[in-house]
Amino acid sequence: MSEFNSDKLVVIGVGLIGGSVASALRRAGRVKRVVGVGRGRSNIERALELGVIDEASADIGAAVRGADAVLLAVPVQQNERVLGALAESLLPGTLVTDAGSTKQDFVAAVRRLLPSHLSTTVPGHPIAGAEYTGVDAASPNLFEGKNVVLAPLPENKPEAVDRVEAMWKICGARTTRMSAEHHDRVFSAVSHLPHMLAYSLVHMIAGRADARELFDFAASGFRDFTRIAGSSPEMWRDIALANKEALVADLEAYQKQVAELTARLKAADAVELERIFETARSARGAWLDRNQKR
Amino acid sequence: MSEFNSDKLVVIGVGLIGGSVASALRRAGRVKRVVGVGRGRSNIERALELGVIDEASADIGAAVRGADAVLLAVPVQQNERVLGALAESLLPGTLVTDAGSTKQDFVAAVRRLLPSHLSTTVPGHPIAGAEYTGVDAASPNLFEGKNVVLAPLPENKPEAVDRVEAMWKICGARTTRMSAEHHDRVFSAVSHLPHMLAYSLVHMIAGRADARELFDFAASGFRDFTRIAGSSPEMWRDIALANKEALVADLEAYQKQVAELTARLKAADAVELERIFETARSARGAWLDRNQKR
Repeated sequence: MSEFNSDKLVVIGVGLIGGSVASALRRAGRVKRVVGVGRGRSNIERALELGVIDEASADIGAAVRGADAVLLAVPVQQNERVLGALAESLLPGTLVTDAGSTKQDFVAAVRRLLPSHLSTTVPGHPIAGAEYTGVDAASPNLFEGKNVVLAPLPENKPEAVDRVEAMWKICGARTTRMSAEHHDRVFSAVSHLPHMLAYSLVHMIAGRADARELFDFAASGFRDFTRIAGSSPEMWRDIALANKEALVADLEAYQKQVAELTARLKAADAVELERIFETARSARGAWLDRNQKR
Repeated sequence: MSEFNSDKLVVIGVGLIGGSVASALRRAGRVKRVVGVGRGRSNIERALELGVIDEASADIGAAVRGADAVLLAVPVQQNERVLGALAESLLPGTLVTDAGSTKQDFVAAVRRLLPSHLSTTVPGHPIAGAEYTGVDAASPNLFEGKNVVLAPLPENKPEAVDRVEAMWKICGARTTRMSAEHHDRVFSAVSHLPHMLAYSLVHMIAGRADARELFDFAASGFRDFTRIAGSSPEMWRDIALANKEALVADLEAYQKQVAELTARLKAADAVELERIFETARSARGAWLDRNQKR
């Protein structure tokens, strides 16, 4: 297995994800110097204060000079701007990876904006979202036992992919490789769609004349169901737009599913309702059992 | 304020809810004798073993003889059978209450099957569901700080309503009074609808050819969103059918909401997507803030 060591790691976007990677690598003694790049002054100063980064910069071009590894951990809609800035200053052979929740859009942007670095730019996605954001929420343990999906380009050098994989393993994560397109279909169904559904429910209830009373009687089931509706609206706007095609298909499939359930309910079809609920309950139970075994 | 004391309390259905009420009243010294009625032999024997009840019976008629208070805590679809059995044996003036998640169906069944006891039958609904069932999950603390809705009949004697209210306060709950129809509309939106939506998502994913892989990458957001899809299929079949009218209306309103979101996504309307997400996020945040203050 390849190792990951870095003399100069640049983390672009020092929030929950970027800050946690930097902290985990530092704790493992695998980075000599971490330069953080961020546009939010207070967050980047906090990152310095917490010792998550050694040096702060607002200028991507200056920051990446001499870097051997660059991690993009910005909201996905900012990737284009960042990749454009990287293209002008990056040394040949520098490892580049990202932590975005969607992969096809990142791959397309890399092909367009960073064509000189296709052999060493390895798309990645750590599955460790939280509704918290900012460097204060960062932790070297964030990725412990979590999944990280790598979506290597056909042009990637095997050593580059191995090095990114090693980086995540140092952070305590398990890694899986799949194509960017496959990644986006999987995460549309199990992550992006549920976010849309939770936002939709809360938005609907908040818009009703009796919203205040409805919320007063909402209990723990509602709280858990809507927890992901507490996530960053900007981030999820970007993810939804970046994975539009797969997500629209899943939203439409879901509407059909709900329409079918509604029809069964209208028809008072007790047998079919119970079958739907039981299928769901047992599939979820089996999933939880598998996960506890891991 | 009225007090609640009972020389003989009959709990019909000694599961999570019935068992927890019995335990809380016993701990407070407000019941002399608790008779449990249940059709599941092993559960009712377990209730005896745990000391949740003093006596077990499979015969409602025999059990309620001489009772001064009766709590129905069976799945809602069983209320008709239970009320029919009660009608034959109940002393005049015996307090009757229930713990069902829907109220209009209970009221209709009481009017039809127990017309002699309208003055002392007080419909209730403790908001303390959990995906666990059975007496082993019961706890005298289950209702601590929880809401209980009472939906009194116009025929109810004020003392009867006060006595049921006192019973729930002894269990640590807050009580609110509203009409059965109003209750059912409120809980359709904040409880029944989310259950339908969670079941629908898991059912949809479980039915896909790549279900196993999809589940493999589902994370904590999916787990919380679908927690309520771990609830009892039989219970939720019954609740859905009992509150069909309000729930169908909410399911249809929700489909419109999702269709609108899908249209905004198709149109790549970043501004409107962010507005929907932000409205939801802030409404949920305000709700959590209010609840923490209580």
